[in-house]
Amino acid sequence: MDPASIKALTFDVFGTVVDWRGSIVREGRELGRARGLDADWARFADAWRGRYQPALERVRTGELPWTKLDDLHRMSLDQLLGEFGLKGLSEAEVDHLNRAWHRLDPWPDAVPGLTRLRQRYVLATLSNGNVALMVNMAKRAGLPWDAILGAEVARHYKPQPEAYLTTVDMLGLRPEQCLMVAAHPGDLVAAARCGLRTAFVARPDEYGPDRKDSPPAANTVDVMAKDFVDLASRLGC
Amino acid sequence: MDPASIKALTFDVFGTVVDWRGSIVREGRELGRARGLDADWARFADAWRGRYQPALERVRTGELPWTKLDDLHRMSLDQLLGEFGLKGLSEAEVDHLNRAWHRLDPWPDAVPGLTRLRQRYVLATLSNGNVALMVNMAKRAGLPWDAILGAEVARHYKPQPEAYLTTVDMLGLRPEQCLMVAAHPGDLVAAARCGLRTAFVARPDEYGPDRKDSPPAANTVDVMAKDFVDLASRLGC
Repeated sequence: MDPASIKALTFDVFGTVVDWRGSIVREGRELGRARGLDADWARFADAWRGRYQPALERVRTGELPWTKLDDLHRMSLDQLLGEFGLKGLSEAEVDHLNRAWHRLDPWPDAVPGLTRLRQRYVLATLSNGNVALMVNMAKRAGLPWDAILGAEVARHYKPQPEAYLTTVDMLGLRPEQCLMVAAHPGDLVAAARCGLRTAFVARPDEYGPDRKDSPPAANTVDVMAKDFVDLASRLGC
Repeated sequence: MDPASIKALTFDVFGTVVDWRGSIVREGRELGRARGLDADWARFADAWRGRYQPALERVRTGELPWTKLDDLHRMSLDQLLGEFGLKGLSEAEVDHLNRAWHRLDPWPDAVPGLTRLRQRYVLATLSNGNVALMVNMAKRAGLPWDAILGAEVARHYKPQPEAYLTTVDMLGLRPEQCLMVAAHPGDLVAAARCGLRTAFVARPDEYGPDRKDSPPAANTVDVMAKDFVDLASRLGC
């Protein structure tokens, strides 16, 4: 792949740009300290994220009408509060906890890498997170996006092709001018089927110490990078 | 209006943030010098912009299906090239001229004012310009948007209410938490009908020396500002 043929980088965000698991654990512990609640916050984070794909699937199949991720997160959270015995929280406290996804911390290389990449490329989110979540996350974490696009703008959740193709169309580009960056091989496979170029960035700590997913085979993606700073170097930034 | 009740500022762009007329004249002169073409570029700019609202109206009424502004600009430009006797341009040159709207220059106070406002507020475009146009303009001019929203994302052109309400919804806010900023009273009237707060910023040079529009009556908007730096001061930034 010739880096000069690429005009925009489109990013998966949860796990690829930000550490959702560590951040949800941090938010849970903060709430626990403030309200005297005890829970296994790592198991809580995994359980919340575990309900993510099943919730998206209800929208993809049409069982639910279009529903933004904040609202899907809240439906899952309401069930988890009972399962984890987290009782007595006010509506404002539950809403604040639900918006923990707006306050996820970036991996340490994310902002330095994006800052270098932005000198040469348009950087856009192509996440299943809704626009407000992405905007608030970016503002808090200093993520230098040129545009917030992805599922809500397309009204289709990845890996449905509309999510990728609407984003590419709104950027005014052809698919092969866009490089999809993700830590998840399935996201890259779906992007490649739509004609985008693909970059895999390893995030070995995404799921904590007990789960390590395999990287894709090297010849199935256009770029393999250790992190975003390495990605910037590989793209000549 | 209490500035603390406002979470996001949404911006009209053409005329309010950028000087479309002066920039199109600049682009026309550059093309003219390069290709030995002579034209009254100010009249050309006014004629191009004069076709803007009629073109949008064809989409609003359903005469045309959804069509992004780049494509409407191109339809108008193809007609104007004949009217102004601008002949012999290649497809690449016509496309470059059409994308002059991606290269509009900001008013001198725009970047300093937005930079101050961004410390406290989410800043989003709420323009009839398409996403790629807004992204490319922002990258060239250094406009520090948090989000590019507006007509293309809503698939409705202002002043249709969907343009304002979809933008507000995607920001995860209620209309009264958003302040619409524009140099055009009609845009603010439409935003206010949707429940947004309104700020008028005077741009007396928008239409050149021969046309001066009247500002709105002071009691019809929430904030009146001389420019974006003044707006930042009035909002306590």
